[in-house]
Amino acid sequence: MKNKITDLLKIKYPIIQAPMAGGITTSQLVSEVSNSGGLGMIGAGYMTSEQIKKQCREIKQLTTGNFGINLFVPNEFNFTDESITFANEKLEPIRKELNVQEPDTLDIPQFKQVVNSFNEQIKVVIEEKIPICSFTFGIPSEEIIHELKRKNIMLIGTATTVSEAVEIENKGMDMVVVQGSEAGGHRGNFIKDTQESLVGLMSLVPQVVDSVRIPVIAAGGIMDGRGLMASLCLGAQGVQMGTAFLTCAESGANRLHKDAILNTEEDNIILTRAFSGKWARGIKNKFTSDMKECEALLPDFPIQNSLTKRIRKESSLQGRDDFMSLWSGQSPRLAKEQSVSTLINSIIKEAKSIQEGVQSLRGGWIE
Amino acid sequence: MKNKITDLLKIKYPIIQAPMAGGITTSQLVSEVSNSGGLGMIGAGYMTSEQIKKQCREIKQLTTGNFGINLFVPNEFNFTDESITFANEKLEPIRKELNVQEPDTLDIPQFKQVVNSFNEQIKVVIEEKIPICSFTFGIPSEEIIHELKRKNIMLIGTATTVSEAVEIENKGMDMVVVQGSEAGGHRGNFIKDTQESLVGLMSLVPQVVDSVRIPVIAAGGIMDGRGLMASLCLGAQGVQMGTAFLTCAESGANRLHKDAILNTEEDNIILTRAFSGKWARGIKNKFTSDMKECEALLPDFPIQNSLTKRIRKESSLQGRDDFMSLWSGQSPRLAKEQSVSTLINSIIKEAKSIQEGVQSLRGGWIE
Repeated sequence: MKNKITDLLKIKYPIIQAPMAGGITTSQLVSEVSNSGGLGMIGAGYMTSEQIKKQCREIKQLTTGNFGINLFVPNEFNFTDESITFANEKLEPIRKELNVQEPDTLDIPQFKQVVNSFNEQIKVVIEEKIPICSFTFGIPSEEIIHELKRKNIMLIGTATTVSEAVEIENKGMDMVVVQGSEAGGHRGNFIKDTQESLVGLMSLVPQVVDSVRIPVIAAGGIMDGRGLMASLCLGAQGVQMGTAFLTCAESGANRLHKDAILNTEEDNIILTRAFSGKWARGIKNKFTSDMKECEALLPDFPIQNSLTKRIRKESSLQGRDDFMSLWSGQSPRLAKEQSVSTLINSIIKEAKSIQEGVQSLRGGWIE
Repeated sequence: MKNKITDLLKIKYPIIQAPMAGGITTSQLVSEVSNSGGLGMIGAGYMTSEQIKKQCREIKQLTTGNFGINLFVPNEFNFTDESITFANEKLEPIRKELNVQEPDTLDIPQFKQVVNSFNEQIKVVIEEKIPICSFTFGIPSEEIIHELKRKNIMLIGTATTVSEAVEIENKGMDMVVVQGSEAGGHRGNFIKDTQESLVGLMSLVPQVVDSVRIPVIAAGGIMDGRGLMASLCLGAQGVQMGTAFLTCAESGANRLHKDAILNTEEDNIILTRAFSGKWARGIKNKFTSDMKECEALLPDFPIQNSLTKRIRKESSLQGRDDFMSLWSGQSPRLAKEQSVSTLINSIIKEAKSIQEGVQSLRGGWIE
């Protein structure tokens, strides 16, 4: 069972902490993952270059281990004034309930601004010599890939289908995270539409492994040593875990978000595009139910994300999880509140025990 | 790694051939699976008791190994004349294209008839002493469970969520097949609705294993030794495989159906309820695309199934897969046309090589 990724990423265990955006990946979380033998990752999708620089310096104070960063590749988006009016109409009763004033000047981002911020993020990745950079929502331009590779930065793409993984390999990336339909948070599909890109890991991993030569990292619903060992059997070289790290003590996730995951079940987790304009997996709540009927008509990411920003924030300030985005993968029953080192140690312990179990099959039906 | 199911089912390998309905599970397929060390299963959902009796006798001529049968638990269904008129309107252009006459007297089943047929099926299972009986679409009545258990028939339920698996255990069934979102054919959910019951195996298996004491069998997207070993790592005691057996030489699947699977990709496989009125996974074609916009409004199973029967049949007679139900799991790239014994032998060979790979991890990151 080849395991190049531990060498390539300079880590002890083939465990990557998923780069969850929105304040979850604190310096404590990232550094503690790296200190415990995994790879900590900054979820920098929504961060400014200044914030990235500050966090990198903090992390370097806390660990000598390797760590990485994730960025969102800018996607072109379309919107009409009508779609914004429509969304605001639908959001109005919620704003009233929360006593949120609609912002006077809506902070609608422009594509050019999004691209500029992305370029600034890339610049700081190079300046700060962040050794590993992963991407979601597509593949960056050839120029950016070339520039990062010239600086010896290890590049990881995110794929939801075989053709996306092949494209990532062809564009010169070093590894690919395959995001199964089980995964929490935003879907990373960038070739086919979301419904056709919802492939379970049991299907997705071996089909990707057969189609690319770069190392494959499995992501989605993996929470423990069972998921790690299963992924390796399928041909992945490692795993990326989000929800399992989100409920850890060191994570910056909102208390309400952690509690929601710790108290829900797998059949209460749905796909919605109502929070951000992009399909994402999270826990069903009042917001997702209220918006369900109209969600297909809401504006694209990141427009809808801007429109719901104050609602999400105010909901959390008021201690209500009704209108917060409660991202979660499909295995919430396996989530625990614990320290990062306890989580990683228990994964390795369980992996070892499964290894012994697999060994004992010999003499049974494996002759 | 406990493996009670090989003892309980009296089989050599923990591999069950999924009981695919509609003529796929020929006596040759079922017996050859059993002769090769797995468990052959008759997909008898649509079969009369006479057909079941005849097939059982054929199979007993072809194998001394154990085999089983699967039945559909009758679900109450509602329909209005309007919904049938609506469906017929939508199907009309397709009937014209295929030159199919709308049946003069539409053979709309009544719930009472469905229940009577089911009771007849149960009777023949007992008479023919079929040793293993699995169920889809719910749990049979306490009386039926009691009667079958009194005859020492091993009972297997089908679950898509943890709560369904717990219910199956509580009702006294002996094992549970957990159907991941990857699975081809009809969804087996019977508590929550389909969208909330689409859980990938990587998430579903460990969460079910933690919640029940009966053995768990993983189903959905499993095609080879990698899927088998991954399922065992997740805590399942065996696997049930459909698509992998469907393209085998001994399967009775239509040539067009086999070719469609052998030539498609994972992101061309979708969920539709347009063929039968129940959500099912299969290959996108002209029929699923034509009906996509209106499928939510079509009548329930088995009404819609009756309405599309002649269309599906005529499409296949005309050598066109445009209007056939091309059920497939999410791993079509792993499908091969081969004999059952070649398939099973290669699964075991691959499982053995993975077992050796897992062993070699010791000394690496597993200390």
